[in-house]
Amino acid sequence: MATGTLHMFTCVSFLLLLKSNIYLCQQFTISFLTPSDCGVEKRFDISSLSCVKCGLNQISSKTGTTCICQTGFKVISSNGATITCQQCPADTKPGVTRDGYGCIGCPGGLNEDGTCLCPPGNILVERDMNGNLLEEAICTACSPVESAFSTPDVTGSSCVRCQDSFINTSLSCVCGQGNIMTGGLCFPPSNLATSVATSVAFAQLAFAVPSAWFSKNLHSSAAACLIFTNLTACQALGNMCVMNMHSFSSITNDACGLYNTIFRATAALGSVQDISYWRSNLPWLYYGDQPGLASRALRTEVLPVGFSFKGPNKNTNINFVAAVYDASGDFLKWGTVGRDNLQLCPDTATRISAAYTFGTAYQQNCILSVSKLLKDFPEPLFYDLFMDFSTSDGERKLIAVPLRNLNLQYNGQFVNQGDNMNNWYLTRRIFMVDTLSGRESTLAAQPKVIRVATDIRISFTLVPNTQRGEVYPPLISVSYSDILVSDPAEQTVSVSFALEYEMDQKEAQIKTDIALGVLGGVAVLYSLLKTASWKRRIASPIIDLETILKFLLFYAGDLANVFFVLTVGTGLYWLIFNKAQHFVSVLLPLPEQEERFVTYVGCAFALKGVQFLHKLLHQLSVDIFFIDWERPRGKVVEGLGAAKGTPSPVSIWRTYFVANEWNEIQTVRKINPTFQVASVLFFLEVVGFSSLALRDPYSTLQRDPQAYIAPWSLVLRYGVAATMWLVIGFLQMLFFTVIHERFVEDRIRQFVDLCSISNVSVLLLSHRCFGYYIHGRSVHGHADTNMEEMNTHLKREAENLCGQRGLLPNTDTQTFQVSITHRLRQQYDRILEPLTRRNGPSRLIDASASPIEQSTKAYHTMNRFLGSVIDHAHKDMDYIVKDKLLFERVIGMEFIEPLDKSIFYNDESHSFSDVLYYGNESTLLIFDTLFFCVVDLGSQSFVLAAVLTYLEQLVFRLIRNSIGRRNLAAKTLVDERFLI
Amino acid sequence: MATGTLHMFTCVSFLLLLKSNIYLCQQFTISFLTPSDCGVEKRFDISSLSCVKCGLNQISSKTGTTCICQTGFKVISSNGATITCQQCPADTKPGVTRDGYGCIGCPGGLNEDGTCLCPPGNILVERDMNGNLLEEAICTACSPVESAFSTPDVTGSSCVRCQDSFINTSLSCVCGQGNIMTGGLCFPPSNLATSVATSVAFAQLAFAVPSAWFSKNLHSSAAACLIFTNLTACQALGNMCVMNMHSFSSITNDACGLYNTIFRATAALGSVQDISYWRSNLPWLYYGDQPGLASRALRTEVLPVGFSFKGPNKNTNINFVAAVYDASGDFLKWGTVGRDNLQLCPDTATRISAAYTFGTAYQQNCILSVSKLLKDFPEPLFYDLFMDFSTSDGERKLIAVPLRNLNLQYNGQFVNQGDNMNNWYLTRRIFMVDTLSGRESTLAAQPKVIRVATDIRISFTLVPNTQRGEVYPPLISVSYSDILVSDPAEQTVSVSFALEYEMDQKEAQIKTDIALGVLGGVAVLYSLLKTASWKRRIASPIIDLETILKFLLFYAGDLANVFFVLTVGTGLYWLIFNKAQHFVSVLLPLPEQEERFVTYVGCAFALKGVQFLHKLLHQLSVDIFFIDWERPRGKVVEGLGAAKGTPSPVSIWRTYFVANEWNEIQTVRKINPTFQVASVLFFLEVVGFSSLALRDPYSTLQRDPQAYIAPWSLVLRYGVAATMWLVIGFLQMLFFTVIHERFVEDRIRQFVDLCSISNVSVLLLSHRCFGYYIHGRSVHGHADTNMEEMNTHLKREAENLCGQRGLLPNTDTQTFQVSITHRLRQQYDRILEPLTRRNGPSRLIDASASPIEQSTKAYHTMNRFLGSVIDHAHKDMDYIVKDKLLFERVIGMEFIEPLDKSIFYNDESHSFSDVLYYGNESTLLIFDTLFFCVVDLGSQSFVLAAVLTYLEQLVFRLIRNSIGRRNLAAKTLVDERFLI
Repeated sequence: MATGTLHMFTCVSFLLLLKSNIYLCQQFTISFLTPSDCGVEKRFDISSLSCVKCGLNQISSKTGTTCICQTGFKVISSNGATITCQQCPADTKPGVTRDGYGCIGCPGGLNEDGTCLCPPGNILVERDMNGNLLEEAICTACSPVESAFSTPDVTGSSCVRCQDSFINTSLSCVCGQGNIMTGGLCFPPSNLATSVATSVAFAQLAFAVPSAWFSKNLHSSAAACLIFTNLTACQALGNMCVMNMHSFSSITNDACGLYNTIFRATAALGSVQDISYWRSNLPWLYYGDQPGLASRALRTEVLPVGFSFKGPNKNTNINFVAAVYDASGDFLKWGTVGRDNLQLCPDTATRISAAYTFGTAYQQNCILSVSKLLKDFPEPLFYDLFMDFSTSDGERKLIAVPLRNLNLQYNGQFVNQGDNMNNWYLTRRIFMVDTLSGRESTLAAQPKVIRVATDIRISFTLVPNTQRGEVYPPLISVSYSDILVSDPAEQTVSVSFALEYEMDQKEAQIKTDIALGVLGGVAVLYSLLKTASWKRRIASPIIDLETILKFLLFYAGDLANVFFVLTVGTGLYWLIFNKAQHFVSVLLPLPEQEERFVTYVGCAFALKGVQFLHKLLHQLSVDIFFIDWERPRGKVVEGLGAAKGTPSPVSIWRTYFVANEWNEIQTVRKINPTFQVASVLFFLEVVGFSSLALRDPYSTLQRDPQAYIAPWSLVLRYGVAATMWLVIGFLQMLFFTVIHERFVEDRIRQFVDLCSISNVSVLLLSHRCFGYYIHGRSVHGHADTNMEEMNTHLKREAENLCGQRGLLPNTDTQTFQVSITHRLRQQYDRILEPLTRRNGPSRLIDASASPIEQSTKAYHTMNRFLGSVIDHAHKDMDYIVKDKLLFERVIGMEFIEPLDKSIFYNDESHSFSDVLYYGNESTLLIFDTLFFCVVDLGSQSFVLAAVLTYLEQLVFRLIRNSIGRRNLAAKTLVDERFLI
Repeated sequence: MATGTLHMFTCVSFLLLLKSNIYLCQQFTISFLTPSDCGVEKRFDISSLSCVKCGLNQISSKTGTTCICQTGFKVISSNGATITCQQCPADTKPGVTRDGYGCIGCPGGLNEDGTCLCPPGNILVERDMNGNLLEEAICTACSPVESAFSTPDVTGSSCVRCQDSFINTSLSCVCGQGNIMTGGLCFPPSNLATSVATSVAFAQLAFAVPSAWFSKNLHSSAAACLIFTNLTACQALGNMCVMNMHSFSSITNDACGLYNTIFRATAALGSVQDISYWRSNLPWLYYGDQPGLASRALRTEVLPVGFSFKGPNKNTNINFVAAVYDASGDFLKWGTVGRDNLQLCPDTATRISAAYTFGTAYQQNCILSVSKLLKDFPEPLFYDLFMDFSTSDGERKLIAVPLRNLNLQYNGQFVNQGDNMNNWYLTRRIFMVDTLSGRESTLAAQPKVIRVATDIRISFTLVPNTQRGEVYPPLISVSYSDILVSDPAEQTVSVSFALEYEMDQKEAQIKTDIALGVLGGVAVLYSLLKTASWKRRIASPIIDLETILKFLLFYAGDLANVFFVLTVGTGLYWLIFNKAQHFVSVLLPLPEQEERFVTYVGCAFALKGVQFLHKLLHQLSVDIFFIDWERPRGKVVEGLGAAKGTPSPVSIWRTYFVANEWNEIQTVRKINPTFQVASVLFFLEVVGFSSLALRDPYSTLQRDPQAYIAPWSLVLRYGVAATMWLVIGFLQMLFFTVIHERFVEDRIRQFVDLCSISNVSVLLLSHRCFGYYIHGRSVHGHADTNMEEMNTHLKREAENLCGQRGLLPNTDTQTFQVSITHRLRQQYDRILEPLTRRNGPSRLIDASASPIEQSTKAYHTMNRFLGSVIDHAHKDMDYIVKDKLLFERVIGMEFIEPLDKSIFYNDESHSFSDVLYYGNESTLLIFDTLFFCVVDLGSQSFVLAAVLTYLEQLVFRLIRNSIGRRNLAAKTLVDERFLI
């Protein structure tokens, strides 16, 4: 201790002196030495972890941690830590005893390790019966004949009874003439091929490896199985057939050929367990001896256990058990299937075991290092897989699980790789990693090739129309990879493990197809109706290319609705039935079965997009005019006494105000779109509704981050997202229409009121001969006045002291749909002609008038003209006011053509908002929903979908606002600078 | 096959007949039987997986898979599958040979298994030297004395040399009188205590268990270590001390006491590896023999390897190696540290190995089943841990890693549990699970208590001020739990494993404190200045409670900025230095060190909230009036020839228009706040900037979902989020000011233009005697006119044909800051008095006038009054126009008090937007940023933060809009119904 402390203080002061060079002072540092670093003359000291020199005449042992005497030296003393060695007298006792403590004379020569050498078949005796060391060792032959039947034991120090097969075959411990000795056993001649194929073919690498294991064991196992009915040998033979990928051909001297030869030869033994493919002495490897019997194994039987997700009889456990054999054919144990066997990928215990919960789609992938495989799987284990269940009387039963080995060859054909079940050749017994058959020269060598089960897929299929969760027996599909071992530390192999649950989706598809057909037909009819209505409204009777185009546009919108209804319905169906079912009765479509659904969603989105753009363009080109009813109050007399005066100008500011307001309500919607996006995102991501889209039967919203998270189902993602959009959108609409518009503000009604107060009417022509009219003539006669009078007007109206605002006397109806006559429209167009031709070839136009003057002139003309039309001043352009028929409302088409007189239909429901965002909420909401869902289906990220949907709304709102404003300025002749 | 097919068809038709009862037809179903189910008379057939009856006189073997002959029966034939047994003649040869194939006479009695019985110390000889079976077996005694030194071997069939310790101690194979035989060894008397403490104390359970392992091995190990210097025995003794938690007291006969006795007794042997605590024969267990030497081990030395995160010398590997010993003291191997030893929790290989990357904070928790621990750890392994590195000349060196065992007791005190390093007593050698010492009666029994290392924490500490990534040696803190095994299948234990990286944060804290102090002081001064300015602007010289309150409010805002700058700076500092450093020079604060930071953020948010609300309230109570310059054009002559006529009314609609526009720009901002939220969310969650907030040194944005995800650092989250907000906010402001306002629209300039065109001025009084004036007198004299004239006006202005818009002739300045005199303000208030008193006690007011009339009257009076003031018509309320001094602008305070004349300061920068959202963008942005960050720090969810921030913005915008609108209506006397 004292020296240590001193050392430390020296070290510290040293540090202070030479701070930069701290590397010199490493107090707790040692050199890294391993036993193999110490060489022959030193041993590795396990206490000091360093090398220590051995004593005189000593060398280090094989492990390197102790010293032993050199060859020819005996130990004379040993105290557990050190030994002393002494040379044996070379003349009298040159040999060292086996325990190393004595010298002894040898009858023959010496072995390499200094012990006495005896001839083969002889044993070496060093001590007498009482343990006294002999002067000279004795070599003695063991008697191989009856009744001794003895042979030297493994150590060569005593005689023991020899192996049964020798005695049985030749009544001696020597395998006699005519008998066959292979694999350490002795056989009488039999009808088995004497030369067997001991190469293992690796089909993926296209070469065969002469296998040390097969050469040693194949012939002996087959013979022992057939001749001695040795069960272990039969299993070993079966394992070799499995290592050969169960492959089966006309060659009879490979492992599977020998298996089948024996299978046929032992037909007399009969089958066991009532399974005709299972011979009593042999392992059960095949389902029948021909391909094509797969559907019998897979679709005949139903698992006797019904799965249910909820309720008192909840049962989602899948219990696999496996009879585990080693390569030599020993039965090791009944093993449960879980982390240590089928799943090669390491993971937490919870996630590993999540695989065996019925209904949870499971997928596990990883990349493993070949060196780790070599280390972890020195020898393959073979599993006969069963599903474990209890019958109603409590007995435990097992049902065999068939295997579809994709690498199996039947007469050189990979029969299991196709999708047609009728060609499959099902087998049993699986191994995960085979590092044994690829060892070329000796069993101790590193294998040249290894075979790894890189893709295991367990699939369950629901019995059609089951209500009690009945499924067919599972099928395990396994695919092996052959890996040429060249650089194990760098080589990797990618493995995957999955559980899939499927049901027959044909019926669902047929139903979808029927719905699509029926609804598509309805859509055609509805679109035809719309086209007819449109033709009526543009007052054009001929069917031209434009009509067909228009029909297609209408049809796009209606078909989009059909697809939307269909996809939302399907999504909701799967969502509800998958998450809410007690007994398992439906299973989600597999990812590859979802493609059709995704196509439908894509169609819905594309068609809805067409409809949306069509509506947008239509809105952006609508005709609108503000009719100012204000007339000059008289002449203004400036100064003191001028006689004639000019008429007092009517202020344009009311029109500016109304136009400005119209500009602002263009993109007002029945919901707050950003709030919509934010709340959908909130419910999906924060509250956790997105968890409902996982491919598992749980309906909890928050999942443990440590638990296994199943992959997403696109159908469910769509179902959850679309439902969430529609529900929140509906709630928002409810809130806005019931509460906000009633108690806070209603922008549409406000606009109509504003028209009334400002003495301005609005004529909107959405089609050539169809449009809307908002009657805004002030009941007070004048609106262009000061604050005092305005306040008085408002007060009078509040107190009901003035007339009603309606177009007809004593009515309140201010808003109308109008069908105008062709003549009226012509007049309208004629007034605007100079303006629309402004940029065209200026023929016949007064070139001297500036654009502003033209515009002002057109405005005044139009104002006067429309005012007089409303006032019934034009006899040839008169109109009548009437109610629309209910049926007209429903189908959105007018029956009467306005030939002679225009028709004003009373319209209390403010349907002029159809040319605004406001009146097209459903289209906008569905378009947003589809946009959100399509982005999400593509990226599987609700956050990205929300951000992009927000941007989409923003961009279209900006477009609608800016172009709409330009259109408003152009059509109403109000300067764009006032539309702010 | 034929029968099988037939069977199957029967089965199918059976199914069709009796569909409900499918359970009857289970073709591939077998019963579940294990070898132990088969009983004594049956064997388990490994081929058919069923029980098969054994032949006559046979019973099943121990494994249950083969049949053997009953006791007293020999095998007469065997072919690998079946045997035949025959009874041995009871009279002549009653014994069965050991190989079971022969009958033999016995010299004595019979064993239970039917073989011959020999007395102890004797061997049983059945065959002669050549392997011939004897008629009668022979029992022979082995000679224990020199020179035979023999004793029966384990099987009892031959004599071998006996154990060294017997020979050394008593020169015989019998441990002589006076010697001590323990643990199968023979020792001479020594100064070791003859009775040792073989109970293991489990401190947490407060009881001791008499340990079978300790009773068998403690005394013998200690003696063999001391007397024979047996290295393995020394290690075994050390392991027992480790199993005793290294606990150390005055008792000398427990494991650690014996270890220390030997340590002292062998002082002469000296130490090894230049480490004074490491005796050459003994394992190194302690750092010194006293507590308190910890800092020497932990803070003296620096790891000779510098860690760097990037660049050509990138080095982040932490290589731990361990010398692995088993409980008996054998050195097993040098093991790398990883999945199989320190980390008990199962996980994927990638995630497991992520622990050993320097700089990645690592945390792993899980719950393990006790039964699994019992299965996986039948015997404890002991690890001597070292860090592995290469010196510059390529030599591999190891540096010892000290251990802080929290369960260590030093004289009954848990010295390692405190935080004071100077009390710690560091040790070496760690084990994970000890199921051995708790075995009570025999070693085969299930342990009564097991001890599990439930909390392992490896911490690295950076050398202060290092630039080259130097760290002190790591310290492993381990905490063990004692578990009383009662129901292993149900019992669980929670374990955790962590790596922590820390550096001394004191310096950073001091710097923060200094910055806080300095900036806080500046904030006080600035707030005082603001208060002074405010006093000047409200024209109140006395310091009253309100002044102090106002000062506190200003101070809140300034202090919030200080905290914000400080926290963003800190966050950014850690972000940049942690993620960008090449050589490791800083390490993130630990979660517990982040509390202070979080408090600062909380302060910043709370104070910013106060400032924001203060500004909001101020904006909601600002005084505003629209001055209409329009005068009647003359008298209106109605009808034909009336002489006098009324003055033509001035239309109020321009004022409505301007008021409406003002109402709309109230919440216009320099950025789009929703776009801000959406884009921040996009960059954080979709692009993946949130990954920068992980406690690891990587700066990649997208992480592999399979990889280990380090825990979040709150500081980094804040740093990333706040930076993202500020950067995107700044970019938006840049876009809006440089591009949008110049080329698309500038709402503020539009408003000023509108004032000019509409002939309306705006007077805003934000304080009692301070405010803003927008001069809007039309250069055309009239604005209340028709479209024709308006267009002419606009055209003339565009062609520069009219005067300039400024207040002073030939200037363009339309916007002013105004300091008004007390007298002017009094007059202003007097005009509004009837309205403000409307709801108060109505004394002295003309009760007959209706509110509307009062309001209209006040409006006209105010309009006339303010118009005349601007027109210099009131000599006693005149004003001058001047430029503000630069210094006045900078500190935001006017130096000249408007005593006699009001002062109009030219203000080209539209600073009237200070009473709008527009002019307070920085406050709003910082408030939003802090809101976002605080929600995120609380919930660790950017999505939730984004949604809530959006809602916060929405709510405050609604409040600002609706109350602002009400205030506007009240102050400008414009009816609220026109503010739409």
